[in-house]
Amino acid sequence: MLPTLLKGGQLLFNWGDSPRNSEEEILKSVKIGICGLGTVGSGTVNVLSRNASEINSRAGCNIIIEQIGARRDNPNCDTSQISITRDIFDVVVNPDIDIVVELIGGTTVAKELVLKAIANGKHVVTANKALIAEHGNEIFKAAKEKGVTVAFEAGIAGGIPIIKSIKEGLAANKIEWLAGIINGTGNFILTEMRDKGRAFEDVLKEAQELGYAEADPTFDVEGIDAAHKLVILASIAFGIPLQFDKVFTEGITKITEEDVAYAQELGYRIKHLGIARRVGNSAELRVHPTMIPKERLLANVDGVMNAVLVQGDAVGPTLYYGAGAGDEPTASAVIADVVDLARTLTADPEHRVPHLGFQPDLLNDLEILPITETETSYYIRLSAVDKPGVLSTITQILSDAGVSIEALIQKEQPESAETAPVILLTNRTIEKDLMKAVEKIQSLPSVVGDVRHIRVESLK
Amino acid sequence: MLPTLLKGGQLLFNWGDSPRNSEEEILKSVKIGICGLGTVGSGTVNVLSRNASEINSRAGCNIIIEQIGARRDNPNCDTSQISITRDIFDVVVNPDIDIVVELIGGTTVAKELVLKAIANGKHVVTANKALIAEHGNEIFKAAKEKGVTVAFEAGIAGGIPIIKSIKEGLAANKIEWLAGIINGTGNFILTEMRDKGRAFEDVLKEAQELGYAEADPTFDVEGIDAAHKLVILASIAFGIPLQFDKVFTEGITKITEEDVAYAQELGYRIKHLGIARRVGNSAELRVHPTMIPKERLLANVDGVMNAVLVQGDAVGPTLYYGAGAGDEPTASAVIADVVDLARTLTADPEHRVPHLGFQPDLLNDLEILPITETETSYYIRLSAVDKPGVLSTITQILSDAGVSIEALIQKEQPESAETAPVILLTNRTIEKDLMKAVEKIQSLPSVVGDVRHIRVESLK
Repeated sequence: MLPTLLKGGQLLFNWGDSPRNSEEEILKSVKIGICGLGTVGSGTVNVLSRNASEINSRAGCNIIIEQIGARRDNPNCDTSQISITRDIFDVVVNPDIDIVVELIGGTTVAKELVLKAIANGKHVVTANKALIAEHGNEIFKAAKEKGVTVAFEAGIAGGIPIIKSIKEGLAANKIEWLAGIINGTGNFILTEMRDKGRAFEDVLKEAQELGYAEADPTFDVEGIDAAHKLVILASIAFGIPLQFDKVFTEGITKITEEDVAYAQELGYRIKHLGIARRVGNSAELRVHPTMIPKERLLANVDGVMNAVLVQGDAVGPTLYYGAGAGDEPTASAVIADVVDLARTLTADPEHRVPHLGFQPDLLNDLEILPITETETSYYIRLSAVDKPGVLSTITQILSDAGVSIEALIQKEQPESAETAPVILLTNRTIEKDLMKAVEKIQSLPSVVGDVRHIRVESLK
Repeated sequence: MLPTLLKGGQLLFNWGDSPRNSEEEILKSVKIGICGLGTVGSGTVNVLSRNASEINSRAGCNIIIEQIGARRDNPNCDTSQISITRDIFDVVVNPDIDIVVELIGGTTVAKELVLKAIANGKHVVTANKALIAEHGNEIFKAAKEKGVTVAFEAGIAGGIPIIKSIKEGLAANKIEWLAGIINGTGNFILTEMRDKGRAFEDVLKEAQELGYAEADPTFDVEGIDAAHKLVILASIAFGIPLQFDKVFTEGITKITEEDVAYAQELGYRIKHLGIARRVGNSAELRVHPTMIPKERLLANVDGVMNAVLVQGDAVGPTLYYGAGAGDEPTASAVIADVVDLARTLTADPEHRVPHLGFQPDLLNDLEILPITETETSYYIRLSAVDKPGVLSTITQILSDAGVSIEALIQKEQPESAETAPVILLTNRTIEKDLMKAVEKIQSLPSVVGDVRHIRVESLK
């Protein structure tokens, strides 16, 4: 982590490894100030540091943490090379800072901070859904007057780029409705109740111990957090002002084990959904426990994960799934907003996002592996003459090739059958080793017809 | 559909209803030329027409189809008000056109057309994955030299904004791997084989009759189409040049009913996946039938739907699901790219995408409905004294309120039990009608404790 000398002699701290072209051509820099160094703040510092080369190659500029405002240090991230102030308001008046990242939470000091940043001509990135849901109209008006942007992707569904997808990716559509699992705590509780037949209070207590739920869980279990997120999603989907006071909100505290069991019996699952639906010239905005058919993808989003299903008139249904909270998932969305702003601030406006996402002169030279060098598990199916010793020969060949067997199926065959199917599931192995063994097996006189293989991926 | 007079006296055809502020302030206009009027071309014309007000309010400008180049008209869309040429090359030299939309397909004429459009300073939007996968490096170089953008969201996974999500939404991440169901035809065939135990050839024939598969199905079932898409996804995920010749490609033609059945038995499903994985300083790029655990979301993406699972180091796994093909889903992505370009071309560069997706002075005034006016289905659970006539009283109250019953569960109780649980599933009804009935049921002397309700949504 060496400092880089910029044009004009300014010494800058470069996060992570330097961009590859730092010697030939110095990238422009965009300077951010982070207010708040809790879970998301430390995640943001860590990801910006670890992925500096990747991020700067995408942004086409160096993104530099110029200052952090926080009441105390956070042992989860290294800020030894960054200027720290104990007064977060120092950050919003710092003339060197282009973008203020608000991660303090709450709606009083945060509102004052964001409005002051805007008044000082700073762009703002925030993860604060309560602030946007309750004061967004006022904040956006101030931002428009000053010609700055307030970005809030991190406020809704953690690292899932749902705001960008609706605002930009689905811009052609009249959005008919959307429905989302947008509170991980509630979804964790309902998942545990269903999987283990546990009572609400019991699971809530565990969620609090695991750190998924606050000591006062009202915001999560009564649906207020979900309502904050829903009102923002509805506004960008339907193009309406933020109207938090109009959201109907019902929590999950009254759901019993019996309800969960009866739902299963009826072919449904209970999820705590935020639903926004266009009905003629009106809209429904509601958060409540909802029974949905168990075969829907949303019904299969479990634990603390989030997902939003969006129905557009042209695109039909699309679904976006991922982690709804956590330090680095949320940091992912914070930094995406920073990169968006950085690209706008520094790039030729007609060429904001590079064709392949990375700047053309900063592409990587990863070697593409031939399939023979690939490592995965394999399903193998063959027909073998039904006589003693065949199976042990086959397993010996695999074992000699270093391939171990995860599962084996050999079915009882009718007396008249001369061959029997053998099905094997292997552990992870390099394809060329597997193929050598398959060739040997294929050449056995006791093996009839082709030995078939299908690659197996756990996708974990 | 009235023409609008712009500043300077130019007469313009305005698609759909005029933007609300057309009288106070004339929006800027961005003019597109469409080459090719097949399925996606007609879908694009139809969606731009139907959603003109919505789209222009999002883009902050009027998007106008200035010219269409097509060998013949398409009866599926109304082009009577648009200038049509039979020579697609007219479009790329038309000085009035800002953006050329290439929807002719193929890699020879399309390549010539796109390069000529770029040479003429046009931005290009294309749905042509083969063109980008095989000639993208050359095309992007030409575009960079001329300072124009080539956008290709519609080429991969239809209307799912997967390109935007990776290039922008996940910009903070080192992408570790991605895996996608990116060919709907193949997924339809594998889904039918699994659900109905049918043979490959049998389902392929049906897919051809349904129009899901071409007369020559090689591109789909041998994985070439998926390989085109995978190489593009891998390039934007890893920041590497397009290397189509390095993709390992294996089709689904050798998958048998037995394999499908054995996979089920082992707890897996077979999907035709495109997989890109970073391994140290190398990368795997491969398309092949893959067994994945049946509880994964990807394993539950059925029929012609597409989905891409992306693993980022910060965000963890995120998944994007939707229609992978079709006229309007693909048009949705084409128009999203057009809106992106239009926003860049016309907006204050520091304020490219409005805070709520729509321009602040073009927000809608949808009324937010109170929950009592909401229509949905309901699950009702109550405890009733176990004596004759109670159930008929309850169902009569619901019937009087216009609520019909979809399902009813009443469980046998032990002799000793004084009450029995009654579970009802209603048809769709207005909440206030349901609540009136619930109040009446609650007041019955034979009903013990609270009558509970949970809203039911089919999410279809």
